[in-house]
Amino acid sequence: MARNSIGKEFAVTSFGESHGKCVGVVIDGCPAGLPLSEKDIQAELDRRIPAQPKIVSGRIEKDKVEILSGVFNGFTTGAPIAMLVANKEADSSDYEAIKDLPRPGHADYPAREKYGGFNDYRGGGRFSGRVTVVLMMAGAVAKKLLSAFDVDVLAYTKAVGKVKMGKSLSPEEIRERRYETAVRCPDSACAEAMEAAIVKARKDGDSLGGIIECIALNVPVGVGEPLFDALDADIAKILLAVPAVKGVEFGAGFKAAELKGSENNDAYRMRQGKVVTLTNNAGGILGGLSSGMPIIVRVAVKPTPSITKEQRTINLRNMEDATIAVKGRHDPCVLPKAVPVVEAALATVLADHMIRAGLISKVLREKK
Amino acid sequence: MARNSIGKEFAVTSFGESHGKCVGVVIDGCPAGLPLSEKDIQAELDRRIPAQPKIVSGRIEKDKVEILSGVFNGFTTGAPIAMLVANKEADSSDYEAIKDLPRPGHADYPAREKYGGFNDYRGGGRFSGRVTVVLMMAGAVAKKLLSAFDVDVLAYTKAVGKVKMGKSLSPEEIRERRYETAVRCPDSACAEAMEAAIVKARKDGDSLGGIIECIALNVPVGVGEPLFDALDADIAKILLAVPAVKGVEFGAGFKAAELKGSENNDAYRMRQGKVVTLTNNAGGILGGLSSGMPIIVRVAVKPTPSITKEQRTINLRNMEDATIAVKGRHDPCVLPKAVPVVEAALATVLADHMIRAGLISKVLREKK
Amino acid sequence: MARNSIGKEFAVTSFGESHGKCVGVVIDGCPAGLPLSEKDIQAELDRRIPAQPKIVSGRIEKDKVEILSGVFNGFTTGAPIAMLVANKEADSSDYEAIKDLPRPGHADYPAREKYGGFNDYRGGGRFSGRVTVVLMMAGAVAKKLLSAFDVDVLAYTKAVGKVKMGKSLSPEEIRERRYETAVRCPDSACAEAMEAAIVKARKDGDSLGGIIECIALNVPVGVGEPLFDALDADIAKILLAVPAVKGVEFGAGFKAAELKGSENNDAYRMRQGKVVTLTNNAGGILGGLSSGMPIIVRVAVKPTPSITKEQRTINLRNMEDATIAVKGRHDPCVLPKAVPVVEAALATVLADHMIRAGLISKVLREKK
Amino acid sequence: MARNSIGKEFAVTSFGESHGKCVGVVIDGCPAGLPLSEKDIQAELDRRIPAQPKIVSGRIEKDKVEILSGVFNGFTTGAPIAMLVANKEADSSDYEAIKDLPRPGHADYPAREKYGGFNDYRGGGRFSGRVTVVLMMAGAVAKKLLSAFDVDVLAYTKAVGKVKMGKSLSPEEIRERRYETAVRCPDSACAEAMEAAIVKARKDGDSLGGIIECIALNVPVGVGEPLFDALDADIAKILLAVPAVKGVEFGAGFKAAELKGSENNDAYRMRQGKVVTLTNNAGGILGGLSSGMPIIVRVAVKPTPSITKEQRTINLRNMEDATIAVKGRHDPCVLPKAVPVVEAALATVLADHMIRAGLISKVLREKK
Repeated sequence: MARNSIGKEFAVTSFGESHGKCVGVVIDGCPAGLPLSEKDIQAELDRRIPAQPKIVSGRIEKDKVEILSGVFNGFTTGAPIAMLVANKEADSSDYEAIKDLPRPGHADYPAREKYGGFNDYRGGGRFSGRVTVVLMMAGAVAKKLLSAFDVDVLAYTKAVGKVKMGKSLSPEEIRERRYETAVRCPDSACAEAMEAAIVKARKDGDSLGGIIECIALNVPVGVGEPLFDALDADIAKILLAVPAVKGVEFGAGFKAAELKGSENNDAYRMRQGKVVTLTNNAGGILGGLSSGMPIIVRVAVKPTPSITKEQRTINLRNMEDATIAVKGRHDPCVLPKAVPVVEAALATVLADHMIRAGLISKVLREKK
Repeated sequence: MARNSIGKEFAVTSFGESHGKCVGVVIDGCPAGLPLSEKDIQAELDRRIPAQPKIVSGRIEKDKVEILSGVFNGFTTGAPIAMLVANKEADSSDYEAIKDLPRPGHADYPAREKYGGFNDYRGGGRFSGRVTVVLMMAGAVAKKLLSAFDVDVLAYTKAVGKVKMGKSLSPEEIRERRYETAVRCPDSACAEAMEAAIVKARKDGDSLGGIIECIALNVPVGVGEPLFDALDADIAKILLAVPAVKGVEFGAGFKAAELKGSENNDAYRMRQGKVVTLTNNAGGILGGLSSGMPIIVRVAVKPTPSITKEQRTINLRNMEDATIAVKGRHDPCVLPKAVPVVEAALATVLADHMIRAGLISKVLREKK
Repeated sequence: MARNSIGKEFAVTSFGESHGKCVGVVIDGCPAGLPLSEKDIQAELDRRIPAQPKIVSGRIEKDKVEILSGVFNGFTTGAPIAMLVANKEADSSDYEAIKDLPRPGHADYPAREKYGGFNDYRGGGRFSGRVTVVLMMAGAVAKKLLSAFDVDVLAYTKAVGKVKMGKSLSPEEIRERRYETAVRCPDSACAEAMEAAIVKARKDGDSLGGIIECIALNVPVGVGEPLFDALDADIAKILLAVPAVKGVEFGAGFKAAELKGSENNDAYRMRQGKVVTLTNNAGGILGGLSSGMPIIVRVAVKPTPSITKEQRTINLRNMEDATIAVKGRHDPCVLPKAVPVVEAALATVLADHMIRAGLISKVLREKK
Repeated sequence: MARNSIGKEFAVTSFGESHGKCVGVVIDGCPAGLPLSEKDIQAELDRRIPAQPKIVSGRIEKDKVEILSGVFNGFTTGAPIAMLVANKEADSSDYEAIKDLPRPGHADYPAREKYGGFNDYRGGGRFSGRVTVVLMMAGAVAKKLLSAFDVDVLAYTKAVGKVKMGKSLSPEEIRERRYETAVRCPDSACAEAMEAAIVKARKDGDSLGGIIECIALNVPVGVGEPLFDALDADIAKILLAVPAVKGVEFGAGFKAAELKGSENNDAYRMRQGKVVTLTNNAGGILGGLSSGMPIIVRVAVKPTPSITKEQRTINLRNMEDATIAVKGRHDPCVLPKAVPVVEAALATVLADHMIRAGLISKVLREKK
């Protein structure tokens, strides 16, 4: 059943909790012969680190990855790649006090019901944003693999609360600038407004959500396995599995629902001997298959549920109404950390599907 | 890999093409002891039939289901349930002419690339909306199964193009009225405007999309298998696998991205000894688990890509620019047919996950 | 969970019962571009037909295959291939009488317990040897696919009861002669003794089992996916899923347990520029990977449990001791029918694993 | 695809190599509420430790398990349980010398071909018997889980080379005595002869194989998921995935092929109000379902391929004939270590299938 695994060729299994010993991953199916070191993974992990402490949580962990298996003499071997990141700074003291008070917007209540109270509730345990580190590790390998086939995956913050990036930037501009701002928005003017909004929310004991857009360039045509393993279906699945994501749309997305067919259809043309579409309302996916155009997907991220403002809840010990004010160090907006996670998630799906489509071979280069 | 299968306990395998002999399904994992007959399936299939011919395609098939296996003496046996619906009215003549001209907005081009030209291109073949009949059959069994556990799944049209249903109706009203209008919108005044818009689009040789909302009532708390088989992740996956769906959102969805945490969090309260939330911005899912509140999901459906207006395309035989006007009988708006499909898709995921959660047993009642 | 599915790339889903409407199969993942027609399947099905009625059951069905999907213009399309064979000659009258009397050696009793009595008990229902027709259909496609890569799969009867084939024949001799005798043994003298033994068993109201050996030639080196999807592991799994098989061994098999390492190890040598081993005690599989030598596997088939001799059983209605004499038309020895089934089963696993190893591409030849 | 994962509810993912940092496992799907500590795992691991150094390898590792996740306050949480054992005593020096000389009977040659030479060849890497430690860890959890449902799994050595245990012992005797002898044979006189044979083989620079029998008691009737996930099919799969296993048989096994139906069928009788069979030639499995009788399975283990005697091989660098004498510390007979591994493997499958059958719930006891 593998509820904590995803992917069929590039299969990722996740383990670990927020306040346990570590978070970890096993990647089964990465082709042999990919140059890989802890540095490759570490570079991606470092992207989750707050560029500007004021807009993120006080819990600043310098996550350090350790590769446990599957790499030999600097190359992947074809055997499972296990990696982990130790949890260092977890402070569980705040959680005992609110053990019986489910935090609104968190999984506390349904998790307790599902697991009969045996779940590790500290910091949300298995349901914490902390587990996205697993996707970061998997995504780092996926990105390295994809880059060998010229596929590039770029995510960035498109909106924070009501502050929306209006400007349209080229992929090159996005690639260069998105990690220059603390909010991971490549439009610096807009980024400033976003930061200000986050700082204000934090001061108010409140939080903000937003929208992340992710683009994949150079994905060959025909990637995806309809019916049910359609490329957009599998992308949607992994993105909705990222904590706080409440919606996903491709290309024109929800806007497409308002368009006429003649407006929404992307016309084909030949350009330099290559098939292209003049618009990309499809977001690069038709009938669950990549069309050869850039893949464009957006996710809606809800505001961080942990806020210091008092909220109404219940006490599960006596089943009575209660109130809660969530203490601890919480990001007033998770988008800065979520941007590389979305990128990693999309890369993971693309790596899996390019292998499935036979576009990435099982051994990257012959050595023997 | 099972790219044409979905679900882990209630596992659905799909086969068939638009203009082949039939479309069919195998359901593996339906518990033994569920009363089931062809009538149950037929009743659901009949819901796809156009209530009003003017707003749908000329291809009016009275789909007739045949159960091939897995049912004995009126009950499911625990063995795989295979079912099929023969294709009767398929007219393939229009397709030979446009074989080399990929229709904009359709999967023609990437499918041809992926399958080396061996794919059945007639009517979109495996990529046709016709294959949603498979989900209808699976969903019919799933709904019968869920109803034995009081779970009810209700979809309806919320918007057609720019005509949006503003009124908020109760689940009871939705249940009763949604199939009373041709567009499957429970608000009759709004339904009229939607129909008018569709009729106009058809007259213009154009098409419309829209938004479908689906609600599931009485889903117990704790359904879903995080991390990756989160309930919302699996719902998103199956819905994106439905042709023409370009986005999916839960509860407040993309709106949540604009809210503050204090606005978006759903406060808990005790009501008649039961845990409830005062709002349902989460759409009944927290951390990938059902919360006990109604599950609310919306999908964006793009306008039908087949339009009679002339469109720009390419000729894949000589790789030159070309134009196309899609003939044949096509729905100017697929929402009326898509509403029961969305309902079936959600039911299929819920049946699977309720079995997975141990909430539906492997034998429904003891007989021996 | 897909309990009725097997294979990860060449994924086979089975449905149907002994006395239901049909037995059928869906193959998901057969590459596009394989020439395929009903004739290919029919030729394999015909191999199950008794060459000599006296040694098999009275139920002589001329099974007729129908391809429902996945084939277009004479080639596979890459879409799921559904096929079925109608059940024509099923006579269920004998089964009502013994409904409550589990037949020794059959699955009647555990099946009734597992499915709460809802299982289709007629002729063993889902547990009947009849369902091996599904493997025959899948195997026919697999063999066609493998033959395009020069892989040949050959099964034959090696022992019936205590009559054992001593002679060692070449693969060529086996290929030519095995279907010349009614018992599917390529050594005609031995075949005669086997037939005589079967005829005697039938006269005694008794039955016989035996041993089937299956050889696969020209399997490239490196096929198999250790650890758990080791080639021998997956072969063993599918063979044990064939009714009446109680054991499986590779190469020297159980004999290897008595040998010394120096006797059992297969020495490597270069022969005509190719790596070979001088012996093949490994049966062509090392560490779960094909070694490049012929794959050799043997299965132990138990004697048909349906015998007319009176046997002790219980009555499940009143839970008291009882006796039973199984009527109906039953093969006194299933080996003649089981030989092509074992061949089909091995071919199915090899097709799956050669695709998995990247040795068979997703599109067999470019057409477009 | 999860080639390094097995099980659908109790899903085991394996990682690690013989001479890498560690061997590890992730168990996904262990029910919440099972008391579990490192002690439970350690006790099983210790069973692999040589009781008598002279009959096993010089590499005596005191394997020490570390639980990384999935256990909280002494109970399983329902989240994935990750565990690892560090590799301490690996000495890789011997392997550089023979890097290009595939050891007969090992996976060296096919592994190098499959992975393009990128595989970790030290000590067999991923193909080493060392990876059975993973099964030991998974099996330890499975056994703890099964014991809560009174299911007991007992393996023991039945033959070493030509020394066979003739005596028939009761399960109670087996349970008590099997770990009293160095060879894990509960018949002490026979064990002495086995040890002597092993000591002689070692002195001769040779090795021995043998037969292990494993019994599972108190498995409820109806466990197993036919067709393809038949209980015996899944047991065979996991056992063939254990290095050195070349055959598997159930109950009468290959002997059944020689019996008549009237001899092999197990007659049903009522005994103390319970359904039993008077014999157990079926080995407790009928039609892929447990019958309620003890499950009996035997595996053939080949002699250790690593022997100090000179053997013929080839040099893969220049593709010429060569010779090899395998140095390093190798067990002259792996059965003493393999006995607990077989036990662990069977327990793992049974845990998986009892959950699948709905006989073990998702939360073991209510706590909240």
